[in-house]
Amino acid sequence: MALSVEKTASGREYKVKDLSQADFGRLELELAEVEMPGLMACRAEFGPSQPFKGARISGSLHMTIQTAVLIETLTALGAEGETLEEYWWCTERCLDWGAGGGPDLIVDDGGDATLLIHEGVKAEEEFERSGKVPDPASTDNPEFKIVLTIIRDGLKTDARKYRKMKERLVGVSEETTTGVKRLYQMQESGTLLFPAINVNDSVTKSKFDNLYGCRHSLPDGLMRATDVMIAGKVAVVCGYGDVGKGCAAALKQAGARVIVTEIDPICALQALMEGIQILTLEDVVSDADIFVTTTGNKDIIMVDHMRKMKNNAIVCNIGHFDNEIDMNGLETYPGVKRITIKPQTDRWVFPETNTGIIVLAEGRLMNLGCATGHPSFVMSCSFTNQVIAQLELWKEKATGKYEKKVYVLPKHLDEKVAALHLGKLGARLTKLTKAQSEYISIPVEGPYKPAAYRY
Amino acid sequence: MALSVEKTASGREYKVKDLSQADFGRLELELAEVEMPGLMACRAEFGPSQPFKGARISGSLHMTIQTAVLIETLTALGAEGETLEEYWWCTERCLDWGAGGGPDLIVDDGGDATLLIHEGVKAEEEFERSGKVPDPASTDNPEFKIVLTIIRDGLKTDARKYRKMKERLVGVSEETTTGVKRLYQMQESGTLLFPAINVNDSVTKSKFDNLYGCRHSLPDGLMRATDVMIAGKVAVVCGYGDVGKGCAAALKQAGARVIVTEIDPICALQALMEGIQILTLEDVVSDADIFVTTTGNKDIIMVDHMRKMKNNAIVCNIGHFDNEIDMNGLETYPGVKRITIKPQTDRWVFPETNTGIIVLAEGRLMNLGCATGHPSFVMSCSFTNQVIAQLELWKEKATGKYEKKVYVLPKHLDEKVAALHLGKLGARLTKLTKAQSEYISIPVEGPYKPAAYRY
Amino acid sequence: MALSVEKTASGREYKVKDLSQADFGRLELELAEVEMPGLMACRAEFGPSQPFKGARISGSLHMTIQTAVLIETLTALGAEGETLEEYWWCTERCLDWGAGGGPDLIVDDGGDATLLIHEGVKAEEEFERSGKVPDPASTDNPEFKIVLTIIRDGLKTDARKYRKMKERLVGVSEETTTGVKRLYQMQESGTLLFPAINVNDSVTKSKFDNLYGCRHSLPDGLMRATDVMIAGKVAVVCGYGDVGKGCAAALKQAGARVIVTEIDPICALQALMEGIQILTLEDVVSDADIFVTTTGNKDIIMVDHMRKMKNNAIVCNIGHFDNEIDMNGLETYPGVKRITIKPQTDRWVFPETNTGIIVLAEGRLMNLGCATGHPSFVMSCSFTNQVIAQLELWKEKATGKYEKKVYVLPKHLDEKVAALHLGKLGARLTKLTKAQSEYISIPVEGPYKPAAYRY
Amino acid sequence: MALSVEKTASGREYKVKDLSQADFGRLELELAEVEMPGLMACRAEFGPSQPFKGARISGSLHMTIQTAVLIETLTALGAEGETLEEYWWCTERCLDWGAGGGPDLIVDDGGDATLLIHEGVKAEEEFERSGKVPDPASTDNPEFKIVLTIIRDGLKTDARKYRKMKERLVGVSEETTTGVKRLYQMQESGTLLFPAINVNDSVTKSKFDNLYGCRHSLPDGLMRATDVMIAGKVAVVCGYGDVGKGCAAALKQAGARVIVTEIDPICALQALMEGIQILTLEDVVSDADIFVTTTGNKDIIMVDHMRKMKNNAIVCNIGHFDNEIDMNGLETYPGVKRITIKPQTDRWVFPETNTGIIVLAEGRLMNLGCATGHPSFVMSCSFTNQVIAQLELWKEKATGKYEKKVYVLPKHLDEKVAALHLGKLGARLTKLTKAQSEYISIPVEGPYKPAAYRY
Repeated sequence: MALSVEKTASGREYKVKDLSQADFGRLELELAEVEMPGLMACRAEFGPSQPFKGARISGSLHMTIQTAVLIETLTALGAEGETLEEYWWCTERCLDWGAGGGPDLIVDDGGDATLLIHEGVKAEEEFERSGKVPDPASTDNPEFKIVLTIIRDGLKTDARKYRKMKERLVGVSEETTTGVKRLYQMQESGTLLFPAINVNDSVTKSKFDNLYGCRHSLPDGLMRATDVMIAGKVAVVCGYGDVGKGCAAALKQAGARVIVTEIDPICALQALMEGIQILTLEDVVSDADIFVTTTGNKDIIMVDHMRKMKNNAIVCNIGHFDNEIDMNGLETYPGVKRITIKPQTDRWVFPETNTGIIVLAEGRLMNLGCATGHPSFVMSCSFTNQVIAQLELWKEKATGKYEKKVYVLPKHLDEKVAALHLGKLGARLTKLTKAQSEYISIPVEGPYKPAAYRY
Repeated sequence: MALSVEKTASGREYKVKDLSQADFGRLELELAEVEMPGLMACRAEFGPSQPFKGARISGSLHMTIQTAVLIETLTALGAEGETLEEYWWCTERCLDWGAGGGPDLIVDDGGDATLLIHEGVKAEEEFERSGKVPDPASTDNPEFKIVLTIIRDGLKTDARKYRKMKERLVGVSEETTTGVKRLYQMQESGTLLFPAINVNDSVTKSKFDNLYGCRHSLPDGLMRATDVMIAGKVAVVCGYGDVGKGCAAALKQAGARVIVTEIDPICALQALMEGIQILTLEDVVSDADIFVTTTGNKDIIMVDHMRKMKNNAIVCNIGHFDNEIDMNGLETYPGVKRITIKPQTDRWVFPETNTGIIVLAEGRLMNLGCATGHPSFVMSCSFTNQVIAQLELWKEKATGKYEKKVYVLPKHLDEKVAALHLGKLGARLTKLTKAQSEYISIPVEGPYKPAAYRY
Repeated sequence: MALSVEKTASGREYKVKDLSQADFGRLELELAEVEMPGLMACRAEFGPSQPFKGARISGSLHMTIQTAVLIETLTALGAEGETLEEYWWCTERCLDWGAGGGPDLIVDDGGDATLLIHEGVKAEEEFERSGKVPDPASTDNPEFKIVLTIIRDGLKTDARKYRKMKERLVGVSEETTTGVKRLYQMQESGTLLFPAINVNDSVTKSKFDNLYGCRHSLPDGLMRATDVMIAGKVAVVCGYGDVGKGCAAALKQAGARVIVTEIDPICALQALMEGIQILTLEDVVSDADIFVTTTGNKDIIMVDHMRKMKNNAIVCNIGHFDNEIDMNGLETYPGVKRITIKPQTDRWVFPETNTGIIVLAEGRLMNLGCATGHPSFVMSCSFTNQVIAQLELWKEKATGKYEKKVYVLPKHLDEKVAALHLGKLGARLTKLTKAQSEYISIPVEGPYKPAAYRY
Repeated sequence: MALSVEKTASGREYKVKDLSQADFGRLELELAEVEMPGLMACRAEFGPSQPFKGARISGSLHMTIQTAVLIETLTALGAEGETLEEYWWCTERCLDWGAGGGPDLIVDDGGDATLLIHEGVKAEEEFERSGKVPDPASTDNPEFKIVLTIIRDGLKTDARKYRKMKERLVGVSEETTTGVKRLYQMQESGTLLFPAINVNDSVTKSKFDNLYGCRHSLPDGLMRATDVMIAGKVAVVCGYGDVGKGCAAALKQAGARVIVTEIDPICALQALMEGIQILTLEDVVSDADIFVTTTGNKDIIMVDHMRKMKNNAIVCNIGHFDNEIDMNGLETYPGVKRITIKPQTDRWVFPETNTGIIVLAEGRLMNLGCATGHPSFVMSCSFTNQVIAQLELWKEKATGKYEKKVYVLPKHLDEKVAALHLGKLGARLTKLTKAQSEYISIPVEGPYKPAAYRY
């Protein structure tokens, strides 16, 4: 199967670019494949048996080279696959498999497809009960306004559409923190409509996405955006979770002196054991050259901090949302001037001092804004988790193993994802003997660690 | 309270050395205190309120400088404390508080005190039921033979002794893998007689005991035992769990080229991300200079491996038991000659090649055998966990919060242990604002991470 | 003074872009200034006394942001400054200060200005002696053909022009390996016409240009060109001089397993002491993922090596000339196909295997071709050496201290360059006491090390 | 030849222990040999041709295991060898080869043998001229008093003894900074009596002795003396020459936060490029946990600094003499108390604060005092330089190549020393092709670098 939507039902072809229309070509796809060994190993191992034969998989994913390799992998395993752009009307379209109804499986990224179905079902039931249709004006959230509009419009054509989808759907696998959080909330409130596998918390997903991915892409973003020499500089990393650990390691190795700010004493102690000083932002705000937020929290670097920084201090965020940096405070600071040096690299000059700071990617994720995000190898880990999760859901579709709950990927499948990446890196694993296996009560084939193991 | 037993009930003074009899003095104790900031911070924070006032705490611990600082800390918080040497009859003695019965709390290290009470209660009940006394001849295990003897002898004096102990006992905190394993087995079989807190799996215990502790003490042991230059050598680390990670880091940083063997693909992938090659022992056995086992499994380096090693290759174990290295196979190898270079450092010469390998600490833990074990700072983390666990058990003694189960130390207390070590290292933590706390749904005072967080 | 040539004598304004015409603006210049603290410190320290007052300085330099900061610095110290583009006719123009003759000092970069004057003087003398004019047809070297043309044309206007230049010229400072080599050849043959200071071999020049500069720009170039994840890869660095040391350090720190090839046993031993394996290219050619040449020699990676590499192995050069990689052999390999992935990133596919390798920057310096070369801080070190050398030549112009020879910058001036960079990095130096100074026979103000000190 | 003196002329056997009397045995010697691959490679390469056949070599060396391997190596190459203990009367004895006069070659370590001959010759000439004999009372220096006594006594037996020695002597090789300094002073004053090769400044000597040696032995000494956890501590390294670089690297890698003090701006800049902060001792004296002097200068850490340190701060010296630390100021500080924790580890308590600092090895070299000095591999580099220098002197004895001057070991021999160590570390060197050799004007067999190359 090709990536293009033309092969599927009419009415959708305007939404999803096929490969030839995408801004990358067959060659780049081939190059990416070499760097996504987990997906290629899936094709080699599972392709022959076509485990997804007959399965419709909808992927609610941003279109990138790596996504394309994922989709090609799913189809190589027998699936019919559908994917979509980043807008809500695409989400809706990708769930629509024509008269035959919806997909069997969803690969979700941010929880949008899942949300749409849940809201759709809710609206249909309300409509059936009371005749009320969703009112987009009832919400201030611009995104949710669109969701309600789509659902309202859908009700006119088929008032059972989302419920039919729900019936058919075997499950969803979700890879983002945000999407997973929403799933757990649904589980807790008892409203989750189908099984969900949380691949976000697989070791092979989280360590790569956070620790190894950011260790790679933070210096990449800094260098592309500013060409600054990192060696010799004082760099402050706010937060020492996995993202912060990756950033601190990268900066230290490039020759910066790194200082970390933390709220969590355990993470702080970990930093200290690596020779990294723990101070508050206030302690160092006027001495440091580079500031990186990695916390997942808001209000980390406020405009009052930025005012006190050295001339041309670099401020950037690789954590979660752009509210880690007080962009609003900065933009509304009286007399502040914004000078765009180049796209994604702005100098903000304060009127009192006439000195300025360099803000990357307008406070949004700097590795996406200023570099190319995670390298393919990192995405290979994430996406192999998706494939393995989809295989698991599909294999167990009739067994009742997965209820309407959120499951982390079982440890042995997390290990499987890792195993699929070892060949490319030339690794040779040791095998437990039977005697050893019995001695430590661990199966020869794994899982090798208890669920709570910290790696 | 002083450490010496002379201050406590008669009949026990021959068992526990007081400080003046120990092979360290007041000065060394003072030096250790500076390196055990968690315990000293406990004294400062909790000493004034004397939370242990009236509590009898029995500590089943090996006598070391660090143990002495722990005991002094418990008594500084108001406890009457009792401790003991490493033999079973000491364990029994340390549980015996005279006519008043047993202790309120136990600090256990290996689960011996806990085992003795459980076996004692079982025997008393059997004796009451059937008149049968334990028969030391019924077991081949020499340690268990002693346990049965002690219990049998105890039955003659007081046939309710262990049951009275059990009645009084509020709980136990346990810090070893072995002891914790036994506790979980008791919990599963429904035979656990009192609440137990597993401090072995606290982050602040396990990371320090395994990762940071071994990163320190592996090169220390190697250098003391062999004076070998580590730089330029090829070193094989078997296993890349926390101990292996610490060992690999230490060897790499000292300038060795490190190769890791692993069964677990996730840990293998972690090693690869640090630039460490993953091979099997067979691949490298004749090329490497230094071999370190860290697995916790048996039969890792067999005599057949050792025969193929380079002349004067160094073989050592920092994992768990001495059976990681096939000492039995080595000792019984036909014609092998053992030449003791110095205590804990033997050269074993094979008859075919007349070349030899250097085995450290007879295959037992080389950081204990060839160096001085973990530094005080590492023990401070372990023991502060013990103190905090004891405080928690004692505080909740009447609330029913802890049932007859095994609990890991709650996350916020694990964080507390970390916090108590930060001052000494000059760290300054950041505090969440109320708005931030609400935004990420994390209390200002912690716990800051979910239970399964991997650090 | 502005940078533009319009402000100076007529006839040259078409050659040198002024700042507003350059492809960088005033803002980027200001940003670069912050990263060139040595030059800014020169302005602060020497600006007030205007040491170059009345001096004409010709700079034979490529126009970059960093060059602009250098020129502005020279003029801030009182110089009239002239600079030029990269072509020979510019070189000639930049030496022509109109009726008043030539410059007092030359800042040379590659030795072109120096060569032109030497060839000019030689031709004028030959012409005076024999009436013979230079014949551009007498040489095959296309560059030298232009030089002879320019000189021949010049002879028609003023047959003493270059000799007048020589008379006026106080000296030249030169910063490239190539230019310095030529200077030493002139010195040896007794033809050097004026004093020259070799700033290429200053510690503050060579370590930054080679070690620290490449440690920064190798991963920068790799990431921009290929987006490849460096962690987990096997990287071969050919050569372990300063450039190789920087590259190996960068790759290792990014998580690659690095293997070095070397001809020099001392450098090989240094690599081994850092845990880096020393093998030949043949040993690893089919196992590695990334190949980097750093040798300054030719024929390092031949087409026969490239044929044996893994699919999509990356091959690049950060050494000297593009002949480190056998580009000629590659281009003429029968049936080879070149596919340009993007500018400076080509995939070359071999017909036998239909697999390909990725060659960066067509074998030329990949940090220039695929990234932005050295960061400003590195150039600040080079250029501060130039300024300090120019100050020294100018100060000693009448004392005879410098004869018609090549001099390395005196140690205390090399130290001065370093000192001028410390403030920006927040460093605080210790001062020798008089007693200490006497004890080790080192002046309080330096130089602190003997000439042969290796750092 | 064995090591023992009994095999040589009478009258000396009481001075030099033979191997069986030494405090190490044949086994330890064999173990050391494996770690001294340069010396073993010398035996393999040069042994068969017996280049020292007929040569008498006197070694003025401390008796250690490594020295024994050196002596055995010299004799394995055909030399008659003589060695000695560390006292002056031994020096005299070791130069005395009985009726046949003195040695052909001297391996010197500290310049004592060289000094004795020079002073002896001077005294003999003075005696011949004026009949005056040296007067030990004429000097306050206790060491020199002994030298004069020995010479005076010698005059009575043979008034031409030292001149006969001088006649026979082909040359000396010297490996210490102190000895080399004295040689250059003699050369400058024109009093040097025979050729001398300075092996102290070979790359393979100086980098190993200083950088790699101290990187190994600083943490070794710290751990043996104090068992302190290095991770998390703040460590101040005074000086960032080769010794300081090694110490800073070791401490950083062990997890300390390192701060360096420097007088030399170039070395300071190097530290900054590794992310190490440069401050003055005053800036950090009350914050740091560990202080190490590496300067080779005096008065680095004064008693006034020590008074301000934290309780139990560790102070040690690995630089040159014990006057880097103001031991005199400490010892005479009013009311100070010294408490010996164990040999070489003292706590000094100040009366005002009743807090104390831990001083290692009484301020002398802590790696010698608290650990076992450099590992054999480091000494192998030093001693292979000695052997190669001796071979060179002996080979050229009749050619006049070496005049009465001080020579550094020629670069190609320095490279030879490195090459002899590569095999043991499994390295495989690349060979220049003839075309490459011509292209860069470097002989296929080396030397590969110019004399001033900095490595």
